[in-house]
Amino acid sequence: MPGLERYPICCPVDRQVWRNVLRKGDCAIDATCGNGHDTLALLRMVADESGSGFIYGFDIQSSAIESTRCLLEDSSTQTRRLVKLSLLCHSKMEEVLQKAPWLVAFNLGYLPGGGKDIITLPGTTLPALHAASRVLAPGGLISVLVYVGHPDRTILRVQLAAESWSCCKLERLNRPSAPLLLLLLKK
Amino acid sequence: MPGLERYPICCPVDRQVWRNVLRKGDCAIDATCGNGHDTLALLRMVADESGSGFIYGFDIQSSAIESTRCLLEDSSTQTRRLVKLSLLCHSKMEEVLQKAPWLVAFNLGYLPGGGKDIITLPGTTLPALHAASRVLAPGGLISVLVYVGHPDRTILRVQLAAESWSCCKLERLNRPSAPLLLLLLKK
Repeated sequence: MPGLERYPICCPVDRQVWRNVLRKGDCAIDATCGNGHDTLALLRMVADESGSGFIYGFDIQSSAIESTRCLLEDSSTQTRRLVKLSLLCHSKMEEVLQKAPWLVAFNLGYLPGGGKDIITLPGTTLPALHAASRVLAPGGLISVLVYVGHPDRTILRVQLAAESWSCCKLERLNRPSAPLLLLLLKK
Repeated sequence: MPGLERYPICCPVDRQVWRNVLRKGDCAIDATCGNGHDTLALLRMVADESGSGFIYGFDIQSSAIESTRCLLEDSSTQTRRLVKLSLLCHSKMEEVLQKAPWLVAFNLGYLPGGGKDIITLPGTTLPALHAASRVLAPGGLISVLVYVGHPDRTILRVQLAAESWSCCKLERLNRPSAPLLLLLLKK
């Protein structure tokens, strides 16, 4: 479409937001690896030629961690040094982290092709959001893609103090089945 | 705050969005001049040294048009050539326009310091939005700031075909009194 380059803001696609936020050398977290496509996208955004930049990836399904590892190894030579994947609930991210991330990305849904009984649930997502809020670098961003009908829409109730957080919900008006995007910016 | 330059997307402030959309030499519309501050901001975004760029401004209150004219003349040498102010309802913008705008900006509220009985009303705002949708350049944007409690929130019901429009609502989660921002992007 004409003029698309004018619209980093107007297309509420989470990857476009990440691209604006991240710099080479940053640390970022994929809190929901799934099949690894977002993990790889994040790695490409932060990895630079000198080998700085770092990605932590989390998933509770071993098949997701395995798919992510395969995708990364096929696509990047920097996987081993710059990515740490953990078969661990994202609510426990603090047990693993050694660097403060600039971005924590959540994609709340089913693992594509995986069991629909294993989904991210409010019981762990809200604690995970709060863990992310603690570890995030000042100025950093938590991005949460929430699919319509998914129980994790309850996380819209997340309460973060307006003095310290700028919290924004982006909703598509004429695509009712499109996911919501939450952007939680730590001041 | 640290890292603010990373967030053109995350701060749903309409002027930041305009700055991303507009280029020098563009045509833009301030559909609600008010006291003229947005009109001036838009003029500064599009006016270049060669004297291209053009702003149309509309308001139904003569005091608003007068305030805007004074502000512009005090602040810019290019007002006379590059701005056309019309004491006219924005639903009639097509009667005046000679160029296709890249941006049409609405700020739906009261004129600061003006009469509270004169407000933008759904009866004219929806027709104005549709007029804007017709005149907008392909790839252009309609931005609408809607204050909480204002009757113009009914314009959230605006229906634009998803094939031709990307429509997004940005809402602050932890500032319930903050205005909504609608972004209507013509594909």
